[in-house]
Amino acid sequence: MLGHLDPEFIALLDETNDRLRQVFRTSNRLTFPLSATGSAGMEASFINFAGPGDVVVIGVNGVFGVRMCDVAERAGAEVIRVDEQWGKPIDPQRLLEAHPAPKIIAVVHAETSTGVRNDIAPLGSAKGDALLLVDCVTSLGGVELEVDGWGIDIAYSGTQKCLGVPPGLAPMTVSDRALAHLKARPQSWYLDLNMITNYVLGEGARAYHHTAPISMIFGLHAGLGAVLSEGLEQAWARHQSVGDELQRQLVDAGFRLFAEEGNRLPDLTTVWVPDGVDEAAVRRELLTRHGIEIGGGLGDYAGKVWRIGLMGHTARARNVTLLVGALRELMG
Amino acid sequence: MLGHLDPEFIALLDETNDRLRQVFRTSNRLTFPLSATGSAGMEASFINFAGPGDVVVIGVNGVFGVRMCDVAERAGAEVIRVDEQWGKPIDPQRLLEAHPAPKIIAVVHAETSTGVRNDIAPLGSAKGDALLLVDCVTSLGGVELEVDGWGIDIAYSGTQKCLGVPPGLAPMTVSDRALAHLKARPQSWYLDLNMITNYVLGEGARAYHHTAPISMIFGLHAGLGAVLSEGLEQAWARHQSVGDELQRQLVDAGFRLFAEEGNRLPDLTTVWVPDGVDEAAVRRELLTRHGIEIGGGLGDYAGKVWRIGLMGHTARARNVTLLVGALRELMG
Repeated sequence: MLGHLDPEFIALLDETNDRLRQVFRTSNRLTFPLSATGSAGMEASFINFAGPGDVVVIGVNGVFGVRMCDVAERAGAEVIRVDEQWGKPIDPQRLLEAHPAPKIIAVVHAETSTGVRNDIAPLGSAKGDALLLVDCVTSLGGVELEVDGWGIDIAYSGTQKCLGVPPGLAPMTVSDRALAHLKARPQSWYLDLNMITNYVLGEGARAYHHTAPISMIFGLHAGLGAVLSEGLEQAWARHQSVGDELQRQLVDAGFRLFAEEGNRLPDLTTVWVPDGVDEAAVRRELLTRHGIEIGGGLGDYAGKVWRIGLMGHTARARNVTLLVGALRELMG
Repeated sequence: MLGHLDPEFIALLDETNDRLRQVFRTSNRLTFPLSATGSAGMEASFINFAGPGDVVVIGVNGVFGVRMCDVAERAGAEVIRVDEQWGKPIDPQRLLEAHPAPKIIAVVHAETSTGVRNDIAPLGSAKGDALLLVDCVTSLGGVELEVDGWGIDIAYSGTQKCLGVPPGLAPMTVSDRALAHLKARPQSWYLDLNMITNYVLGEGARAYHHTAPISMIFGLHAGLGAVLSEGLEQAWARHQSVGDELQRQLVDAGFRLFAEEGNRLPDLTTVWVPDGVDEAAVRRELLTRHGIEIGGGLGDYAGKVWRIGLMGHTARARNVTLLVGALRELMG
């Protein structure tokens, strides 16, 4: 352990932030790991920039879009919700046309609840004065993501998806354009980016805000190192090819994929549970016999869909073979 | 790694919560590690129970009392601040008389910024309808603390102090009496105890809220195991005797202690920096030559006071000998 103000730790934090910039594809100065899980990244992204009187347009085609609405409403913002059927991507044009002058347009890049990738780049090029806020929890490090190139102003992620690091931190990045709109005193003290910035970016002396979760940051530093050693584009390509292979094999085995073709995530594959199958029993058997955990469906799709992650170091051909083999065994 | 809904992990979380109940000395059902650092524990403790129209009496004799006021104000509560000189304890009677019918009376048990222990038991026995909210960051596991015995309704702590675990979680406990006052929709989604309770206490199926920081909870489980193996009262006694020894040796070496006698914490000792000493240089030398980190003063006492922690596994006689020896070497 090092102290959170120890120069040796500060150097490691600075290097971690540099690595995050590379993985987010951004030159944003304010790029850092927030000291809580991805959902706190979502909350920090809204409450620092939106409050009473601010219009926020939110795309909703899964659990995490719904969660964004809840978070933004609690901040007092006026939420304009653009719904799409779960399993389909949101048409960027609908988000752009939802309000003439929103403060924020927010969307989930990779919907973990449905396996759908929403298109981001068309939003950045036409956002006007709005800030573009994107949930990158299940895309960072596994799926093409260009924070600067796509005009994203505020992005957050988690560590336990494609970065392959234990959960507990929310990597975040904020553009200078967004920082110009930072609230002077957001409703949360813990997530107040004014004070966090003094610690993350403070010149010379770093002002104490809260105690940084040192060991988690050690883990993130190492996980980012592994991604960058492999090469970010190589990591994207690996996730894509392994995900493609899983989807091909599942279709061969008779499964129907849930997410719409063309916007399927490679790292999170959703399939319909075949009729007459006790889906919870299959998941239990996978876990106890093979040590494989797959997710159940969420919301209206609980019991109807499985969600299969191939992320970070688990995105390997052997895991595709193992899972499909195990499913064939269990389901006859 | 285990998944956060894996039965094996849930069993470990349940056991962690049982261990926390023992260390907090409580039978509160809602006792769990919040997924962020101690300061988020503070925020969760206020925003779930206090909002606009609620009067909150806060004792302030250090940095963390000041922080409580900031957090409570952001929640919209009416804050009545009871100040005491830093280095002295707060008279419980002043807190009890500050308002006829507060929603919450809040105080820091062990002020990390000053080394002062505030008396809690007299508040619990005379609190009336108020909820008693106590910051136990620097007391849990190191200093006598009786959540149920002292009538504490809401308490939070950190992991990196006397529990000797990496920072990143905030152990919390909430009485059923307090839960009856839980806000239906607090301003924070991430810290909403309604939803967290469904995960922590859910019967049978645990409802997903956010991804629990698995590896941090492994660490907490182990750290609590170590405290309970030693024996909680034995751990308190060890902190007391080692802290007493440090304070005796510092006085022998000519230092003046900062915190008032009678309410000095054993695990966090404050001393005045002797006149003419470059205090930052001494701290730097301690760190680089001996690997010892001591804290500088905070607030008005920056540059004037040192703060010396002897917490968890570092509360050992050898560390007293080492530090006092190193100070003698460096200061001649």
